[in-house]
Amino acid sequence: MSKSEIALVVGAGGPGLGAAVARACAKDGMRVAVASRTKAKVDSIAQSIGANARAYACDATQPEDVAALFSAVTKDLGEPDLVVFNAGAYAPGNVLDIDPKEFERCWRNGAFGGFLVAQAAGRQMVARGQGTILLTGATASLRGSARFLNLAIGKFGLRAVAQSFARDLAPKGVHVAHVIIDGQIESDRPGYRADERGQDAVLNPDAIAETYLQLHRQHRSAWTQEIDLRPWVEKF
Amino acid sequence: MSKSEIALVVGAGGPGLGAAVARACAKDGMRVAVASRTKAKVDSIAQSIGANARAYACDATQPEDVAALFSAVTKDLGEPDLVVFNAGAYAPGNVLDIDPKEFERCWRNGAFGGFLVAQAAGRQMVARGQGTILLTGATASLRGSARFLNLAIGKFGLRAVAQSFARDLAPKGVHVAHVIIDGQIESDRPGYRADERGQDAVLNPDAIAETYLQLHRQHRSAWTQEIDLRPWVEKF
Amino acid sequence: MSKSEIALVVGAGGPGLGAAVARACAKDGMRVAVASRTKAKVDSIAQSIGANARAYACDATQPEDVAALFSAVTKDLGEPDLVVFNAGAYAPGNVLDIDPKEFERCWRNGAFGGFLVAQAAGRQMVARGQGTILLTGATASLRGSARFLNLAIGKFGLRAVAQSFARDLAPKGVHVAHVIIDGQIESDRPGYRADERGQDAVLNPDAIAETYLQLHRQHRSAWTQEIDLRPWVEKF
Amino acid sequence: MSKSEIALVVGAGGPGLGAAVARACAKDGMRVAVASRTKAKVDSIAQSIGANARAYACDATQPEDVAALFSAVTKDLGEPDLVVFNAGAYAPGNVLDIDPKEFERCWRNGAFGGFLVAQAAGRQMVARGQGTILLTGATASLRGSARFLNLAIGKFGLRAVAQSFARDLAPKGVHVAHVIIDGQIESDRPGYRADERGQDAVLNPDAIAETYLQLHRQHRSAWTQEIDLRPWVEKF
Repeated sequence: MSKSEIALVVGAGGPGLGAAVARACAKDGMRVAVASRTKAKVDSIAQSIGANARAYACDATQPEDVAALFSAVTKDLGEPDLVVFNAGAYAPGNVLDIDPKEFERCWRNGAFGGFLVAQAAGRQMVARGQGTILLTGATASLRGSARFLNLAIGKFGLRAVAQSFARDLAPKGVHVAHVIIDGQIESDRPGYRADERGQDAVLNPDAIAETYLQLHRQHRSAWTQEIDLRPWVEKF
Repeated sequence: MSKSEIALVVGAGGPGLGAAVARACAKDGMRVAVASRTKAKVDSIAQSIGANARAYACDATQPEDVAALFSAVTKDLGEPDLVVFNAGAYAPGNVLDIDPKEFERCWRNGAFGGFLVAQAAGRQMVARGQGTILLTGATASLRGSARFLNLAIGKFGLRAVAQSFARDLAPKGVHVAHVIIDGQIESDRPGYRADERGQDAVLNPDAIAETYLQLHRQHRSAWTQEIDLRPWVEKF
Repeated sequence: MSKSEIALVVGAGGPGLGAAVARACAKDGMRVAVASRTKAKVDSIAQSIGANARAYACDATQPEDVAALFSAVTKDLGEPDLVVFNAGAYAPGNVLDIDPKEFERCWRNGAFGGFLVAQAAGRQMVARGQGTILLTGATASLRGSARFLNLAIGKFGLRAVAQSFARDLAPKGVHVAHVIIDGQIESDRPGYRADERGQDAVLNPDAIAETYLQLHRQHRSAWTQEIDLRPWVEKF
Repeated sequence: MSKSEIALVVGAGGPGLGAAVARACAKDGMRVAVASRTKAKVDSIAQSIGANARAYACDATQPEDVAALFSAVTKDLGEPDLVVFNAGAYAPGNVLDIDPKEFERCWRNGAFGGFLVAQAAGRQMVARGQGTILLTGATASLRGSARFLNLAIGKFGLRAVAQSFARDLAPKGVHVAHVIIDGQIESDRPGYRADERGQDAVLNPDAIAETYLQLHRQHRSAWTQEIDLRPWVEKF
């Protein structure tokens, strides 16, 4: 087991993308760490994957929490070869109605946490001269819409993180890529179920996870920095 | 004097762009409020402009400070017709060396402050169905470079603010534009003086200010949302 | 009269933007040349402007025609200080229905003509170390939509021309800017009249022309390469 | 053999990417058609692949040639499931030195040919409700550089084609993606050999081809429209 790769997915608490990436990595022979603010949420994911998965509690907006997460994962499984940041939280609203505290909280969850995780991952990976960091973007990474500033403030920031980390760390052997999810991800929540929207009209988490794995497997002579993903029927 | 317009420039403490915009507005017949964290810095600007200018202390990253600023300006001069956000602070460095506290501070100065100022301005302006909000961007608004993440985290965020405010407030009569300053602004600091770099090789603050005024004067049937400015010799 | 500047507007045959730019230049004291494939169309524009305007026939997609135009204008008025390319033609349609001949024609009118005009202007201007070239873009400069490929093929190409010319010629003293008109321009055609769409909901040609003139007047330490313009109520 | 998929690679004449994509497709079990203006060039590629490959002469800038190619491939192998457009030609130079005939030729090879191939592919694929069209971009797809207008004029145009085709055809079941190759592809030509530039410093054609195949295999709920690829050491 000592030669299998290690994946760490931060923001795996939902039923959607984080869990799917963890499953795909495990299926591909990797050992997997899943982290979320609420440990109970990732416990069930780790259990469903089995012996190769472990669950961790981590508030990714707290530097000490992130440091403790990387220490624990490294001790338990080894240094991660692939780190995925998939967290974020926001509610839509008009720009004049946004509570500054909520604006800050959304940035902290969407961008600051991504920075902390990328930095912790980058430090380990640069030392070894290899590794992959994948950051999950959205439509709002490229566009500040009228009612989505609280999403955009985190996603624009995370894209800045992705670009600066890529430009700084790529020549040091670390692959940093930004994945723009341009549509709704399928889940059990009302409005996001595949059967409500028409066939394949919401992004299938396992299909997205396939692309994440492929990005990790890319040869370093042909690395992707940014890629978008959307359902065939999505207007854009 | 009751019919002259009012301009408020937040982040006017430096010798450069903020002061130039204030001068240009005053020259155009507007009464001008200049605000900075350190009041002494804007006092001298207000004095050099004369009777039509007033100086205010304001930490734009503090909601109460921003609220107090708009109250004071409105009481002293009237509701601003033009509000310019021009603040920001950062130091370059590699992504793995960035102190999270400094990362957060840079975002707070570059983006959070801009959000607070735009929101306070937008509330007054939407009520009147008119007004202009101009936000100052940089090369780092479009590009996270290897050593400039601390600038990009604020500037990407400010661009998200600019876009969401423009899309939300334009149909309510408020013009929100984002100006990308793609080069160094001339100032007295070593390395930024015009005579060191060759003729017109650094951006002249008065030339930039001219464009700011023109954006404010645009007819609402043909508003700009984003514009770039750079010296003729600047590589891009 | 020998000291007044010269403006040349290519693609001035419609009732809209080209004529408005010519009028704005004349009003600002410039002598103006207006060119169009159909001379009768620009004759009336020149007559309405008066003694400072001349009309020329030119098929901007023909190198010899463009060369002849610049010769004639230079002989009649002098070398142009400002050259505006404003031509283009297309009809919407689905991508599978596009006739390759029509696809090519649209590119030729929208991009090839712009290249020929910019090159002729650039040669004169580089020799004098000054001058302005303004190229008119559209929403389709940034986005290939489902039914607007025939517009996008010209406008994407014209943007490539604008960028390469700007990067090559700016350090030689020539200002090249690209103006993205993101909306419908007011005209007498049904569907484009101001009174049909609500107040200021179509771009006023004189308001656009004002921005063109300002771009020409920008100080070379703070030149714009790209700017967008849209009505306050336009969704984007 | 009736169930194996068919790939058609247009612009496979060089030793680089086109041949690599053809090899990757054949290795994955597809039957492969390779086309180039000069048939001798693709003959050797087809021979090296073996019984599952066929070579075709096609000038992709000629509508009749493209029609004949699709007829022949369909008759010989069947309707293609994957069509790759990989052609293009240009030489660098300053904008004022570009010969208009050469400018047009570069556009015709880089963009017009891509349009013709995409249209022929799209017609077959829409009728079947499935298929993939991949168009090869470059750094110059996003940026008109001072000396690369002759490349940009084709690549900007091809990106317009990619976007309009994607927006029109995706809801009809056809996947259209644009791959931005942001760097030099490894080949035998001096200056492009892997051993001259340092390890993995030029894009390995087989590594790129892997991504092309993955794009073809993407689930339609999570399709990519645009992706970039560059060597780990490439500045961007």
